[in-house]
Amino acid sequence: MNDTSLPIGFNTQTKGVYPIAATPFTADGAVDWDSLDRLTDFYQEAGATGMTILGILGEAQKLEPEESREIARRVIARSRVPVIVGASSPSFAAMRSLARGAMDMGAAGVMLAPASNLRTDEQITSYFDTAIETLGDDVPWCLQDYPLTLTVVMSVPVIAKIMQAHPSCMMLKAEDWPGLEKISTIRRLQAEGRLRPFSILTANGGLFLDFEPERGSDGAMTGYAFPDMLVRLDQLHRAGERDAAHDLFDTHLPLIRYEQQPGVGLAVRKYVLMRRGAIACDFQRKPGSKLSATGREEVDYLLSRLGRKNPSARIA
Amino acid sequence: MNDTSLPIGFNTQTKGVYPIAATPFTADGAVDWDSLDRLTDFYQEAGATGMTILGILGEAQKLEPEESREIARRVIARSRVPVIVGASSPSFAAMRSLARGAMDMGAAGVMLAPASNLRTDEQITSYFDTAIETLGDDVPWCLQDYPLTLTVVMSVPVIAKIMQAHPSCMMLKAEDWPGLEKISTIRRLQAEGRLRPFSILTANGGLFLDFEPERGSDGAMTGYAFPDMLVRLDQLHRAGERDAAHDLFDTHLPLIRYEQQPGVGLAVRKYVLMRRGAIACDFQRKPGSKLSATGREEVDYLLSRLGRKNPSARIA
Amino acid sequence: MNDTSLPIGFNTQTKGVYPIAATPFTADGAVDWDSLDRLTDFYQEAGATGMTILGILGEAQKLEPEESREIARRVIARSRVPVIVGASSPSFAAMRSLARGAMDMGAAGVMLAPASNLRTDEQITSYFDTAIETLGDDVPWCLQDYPLTLTVVMSVPVIAKIMQAHPSCMMLKAEDWPGLEKISTIRRLQAEGRLRPFSILTANGGLFLDFEPERGSDGAMTGYAFPDMLVRLDQLHRAGERDAAHDLFDTHLPLIRYEQQPGVGLAVRKYVLMRRGAIACDFQRKPGSKLSATGREEVDYLLSRLGRKNPSARIA
Amino acid sequence: MNDTSLPIGFNTQTKGVYPIAATPFTADGAVDWDSLDRLTDFYQEAGATGMTILGILGEAQKLEPEESREIARRVIARSRVPVIVGASSPSFAAMRSLARGAMDMGAAGVMLAPASNLRTDEQITSYFDTAIETLGDDVPWCLQDYPLTLTVVMSVPVIAKIMQAHPSCMMLKAEDWPGLEKISTIRRLQAEGRLRPFSILTANGGLFLDFEPERGSDGAMTGYAFPDMLVRLDQLHRAGERDAAHDLFDTHLPLIRYEQQPGVGLAVRKYVLMRRGAIACDFQRKPGSKLSATGREEVDYLLSRLGRKNPSARIA
Repeated sequence: MNDTSLPIGFNTQTKGVYPIAATPFTADGAVDWDSLDRLTDFYQEAGATGMTILGILGEAQKLEPEESREIARRVIARSRVPVIVGASSPSFAAMRSLARGAMDMGAAGVMLAPASNLRTDEQITSYFDTAIETLGDDVPWCLQDYPLTLTVVMSVPVIAKIMQAHPSCMMLKAEDWPGLEKISTIRRLQAEGRLRPFSILTANGGLFLDFEPERGSDGAMTGYAFPDMLVRLDQLHRAGERDAAHDLFDTHLPLIRYEQQPGVGLAVRKYVLMRRGAIACDFQRKPGSKLSATGREEVDYLLSRLGRKNPSARIA
Repeated sequence: MNDTSLPIGFNTQTKGVYPIAATPFTADGAVDWDSLDRLTDFYQEAGATGMTILGILGEAQKLEPEESREIARRVIARSRVPVIVGASSPSFAAMRSLARGAMDMGAAGVMLAPASNLRTDEQITSYFDTAIETLGDDVPWCLQDYPLTLTVVMSVPVIAKIMQAHPSCMMLKAEDWPGLEKISTIRRLQAEGRLRPFSILTANGGLFLDFEPERGSDGAMTGYAFPDMLVRLDQLHRAGERDAAHDLFDTHLPLIRYEQQPGVGLAVRKYVLMRRGAIACDFQRKPGSKLSATGREEVDYLLSRLGRKNPSARIA
Repeated sequence: MNDTSLPIGFNTQTKGVYPIAATPFTADGAVDWDSLDRLTDFYQEAGATGMTILGILGEAQKLEPEESREIARRVIARSRVPVIVGASSPSFAAMRSLARGAMDMGAAGVMLAPASNLRTDEQITSYFDTAIETLGDDVPWCLQDYPLTLTVVMSVPVIAKIMQAHPSCMMLKAEDWPGLEKISTIRRLQAEGRLRPFSILTANGGLFLDFEPERGSDGAMTGYAFPDMLVRLDQLHRAGERDAAHDLFDTHLPLIRYEQQPGVGLAVRKYVLMRRGAIACDFQRKPGSKLSATGREEVDYLLSRLGRKNPSARIA
Repeated sequence: MNDTSLPIGFNTQTKGVYPIAATPFTADGAVDWDSLDRLTDFYQEAGATGMTILGILGEAQKLEPEESREIARRVIARSRVPVIVGASSPSFAAMRSLARGAMDMGAAGVMLAPASNLRTDEQITSYFDTAIETLGDDVPWCLQDYPLTLTVVMSVPVIAKIMQAHPSCMMLKAEDWPGLEKISTIRRLQAEGRLRPFSILTANGGLFLDFEPERGSDGAMTGYAFPDMLVRLDQLHRAGERDAAHDLFDTHLPLIRYEQQPGVGLAVRKYVLMRRGAIACDFQRKPGSKLSATGREEVDYLLSRLGRKNPSARIA
């Protein structure tokens, strides 16, 4: 199902679907290396054009540094598509160490988010100036714009400044909320030649993936547990089949909406990934969220409704 | 279509749909009294069991005190169902003055939200202790639990404390996020006799109205521009028709999701209310949000898709 | 004691001390008009070159609109120095109405603060663009930069943009924290001709008034209950008597520090103003803060220590 | 100068001064082990009854895990007084690993702060329940209450709940703001037998150290660069010499106030520690704050003023 017409590699033209990977643990909290392999394969078999590991969804902040490195090494070695490694850290030295280590292992690039205490445009741009000075300007990276969780709001002018100052930034992970106008504004600036080109993949739990490509996004970078649907949706958009794209999206929207709940979202995702056989266990390291018995029944009900409408989404 | 079997009045047994009313303005920013009448009728013809005015959605903070009083007077006089009046204010004296004024006009009760600087359980409960001491314990009220916008997080224990301390509180407007488990926990405490009964209407833009009644909510208090659907959904839930309820909800979810975007949500709602003929103009007082031409086209597209699936939702 | 050598009027050259006035209430919560007169006189007899009313300290958000107007009318009529009126409001229409009303009464200008939901430079500058468009560009105003309470952080570039766009802005009320470097940066830009001149009065409870004038501020706009000391301090700074200025400031710092506590600060200030005879009663409208018996004893102790070191600060 | 009458050890009766240690780096960002030794000695020679390492002030979040362990090992081995090790972490597993590692090295206990996303009493108490379940209830610990930086507000009832549930908590590091009434309320509950005893050391940059012991605190845990003054102040308070305590405190207040500025506070402290010879270099790892030339001159001026009033505070 892999859309082989899409350009390979992580650069300013990157398109398609980069799933944000969960980190699978066994029931006693150890990294589940078999499930990690299976999950890596699962994303690629779904047609992903890349993948992103060690993000917030991947419980990166609950991993020991040596675990993070080992996860990066294993996924990069196994994956046939580019791997982006989350490298945000309160310490620029640690950011550099993790990022350059990952590049040495063969990562395609890293993802950086602004520190949550930043407020003004000036604070944000100078944060990334120092980060890239520390990291080196030879590491391709993706800028994460996620105000709901990071509490940092980046306007289009500040994103533009960062992009102009740092040609090594290849991609914007766009998950501002609301974000449709933001994508349009960025694409307009680029069309007018006032901003250099870069890739935009969208996230925000996938809640607006029916409209974002129409606004100019290049694909999705989200952890929704049906990456195969994300790939198919991307193909329909690329083919200009608006109604078909919305029809497909709408059948998934009840589950997308349920997965995107703050707090319990990760619990839902890991549960669905487990039910789909991509990981063996939906355990989260502490502090983590839990799905109640009623919550599980609700997800099961949504899955059965989805399976009825989309035979390909049926779970045995 | 009004479900006449539902109990009338605003009390701890209140069920059904209480739309949160927008405040219609003319294109030059004056209150549009004709549209206000039309909107009042629109909600009742949809089968609403009550209505709520002068909330955040109603741009209450942008009204002069005399305008607020006149809007309350006019809606209360015209409505055949109970009217709840938003009375939150930085000043307890102003809260009292607006609330008692509204009660004198015939309001069924008032709605109170916590001040946004409150953090601890103790601060929150003592805030409402002082509010009710100022207001008088003879004014029926609804407690608004809306962390996303108000930035105040009220746990179940703190809600329980407020409810036990203030028998004049009839209802919880539940819009925590995520909120399904919260409703279940409250209903469990009540079933075990550890918490007195009160009504729960849910909001949060209606994004979880497919599951909330299954968790124990009594209905909806939200501004979604298809209150007739909310009423029908409520009936299906009450009749135990789970699949039919979800089928109906799912056809509306793409629009519900689009309306619920922070920042532009009110612009979408006023636009849809205008397209449905409930108000004459979608103007917002400054500072307000705007819907771009592309945004309007997207809403039109969602409306046309909705109309295709639900003939009753078709707009001429 | 009035420093008659200072220029009169509210403009970009304004210097000296503009006390932020408390609003005196009687013990039953009514505005205490006699105390308001006494307080107006108190500030002028202390040598203030202007005064600011209806700010946060003045409990503006707990006043009815008609009370605000009457307070403005009364203070403006009585005062021989320029009066700035706080006009911030969630509604731009209300802001305009209060501001123009105050100007008609003879106010020297108004004070505007950014709405607390603003985050990016773009949001902040366009907020003031719309505010001034609504207000009219003929109303002289003061920009309040107070992140600790308002939660809006304005960088020097954003302040510069606002100042360049709006020549009617005469003054920056500087109470960022830390703020010394900010004052230096602004003054450097002005010295280099890259920013037009404007007045800077500092606040932040007065906690850095020993260094701020050395950094380039023009005086103080704060509610510290010893405005006579603020005037004397201003004179010493203007005379270049660094050691004497710091000596004077240091004797007041223990009380300044105590008054500046968030939450109880206003209670302390009203108590000291009452003990100094400037107002009859230290009542605050609800919701308000209270000074415990121990707190009062601590303030009394600080006052007695201050009186021992500064005979002029002795309270009978 | 060490007050040998104070009980030794970290327990619910702990009194005296526990400086929060900076982490010294060389100019190229490596840990400066010689300065670390010197600083350890500096605190003890000042009469500290304990010390706290790897806190926010110690730039803990910018250290590699192996560096943190080595710093803990070195300070614990050298110190003759109890050492508390900051162990807060987004991962409970990492918290356990660092805490138990430190205990094995001979630490007296650990310090834990609430995660910054916690809001309700229930969230806070259950966070510590899970933390202590993970950590083990045999590790003595100190609870950090620091809303200004951590953004978590803990009321007295929530502190009481944590203390009652976890007898291994020996101490409250009190730096709420304002905090005087909080200390009084806790001590009142304990006096009435409604709360078990525990030690309270206060911080908040030392800004209220003149009154906190009068309210019932047992001493100071702050990073002010004159720990010898903190020890002397503690002795004066213990001896009931109120005026002398305030006289001493007041001479230091201008510098305490200057050091306590958010953002630049650590730069000021490291600079003063360097000028006092306790560390060789005031370098901070990135992202860090900097002291401008004017800022340094201001600190020098404050130091010279302090030295004039307190010969013992004179710097060569």
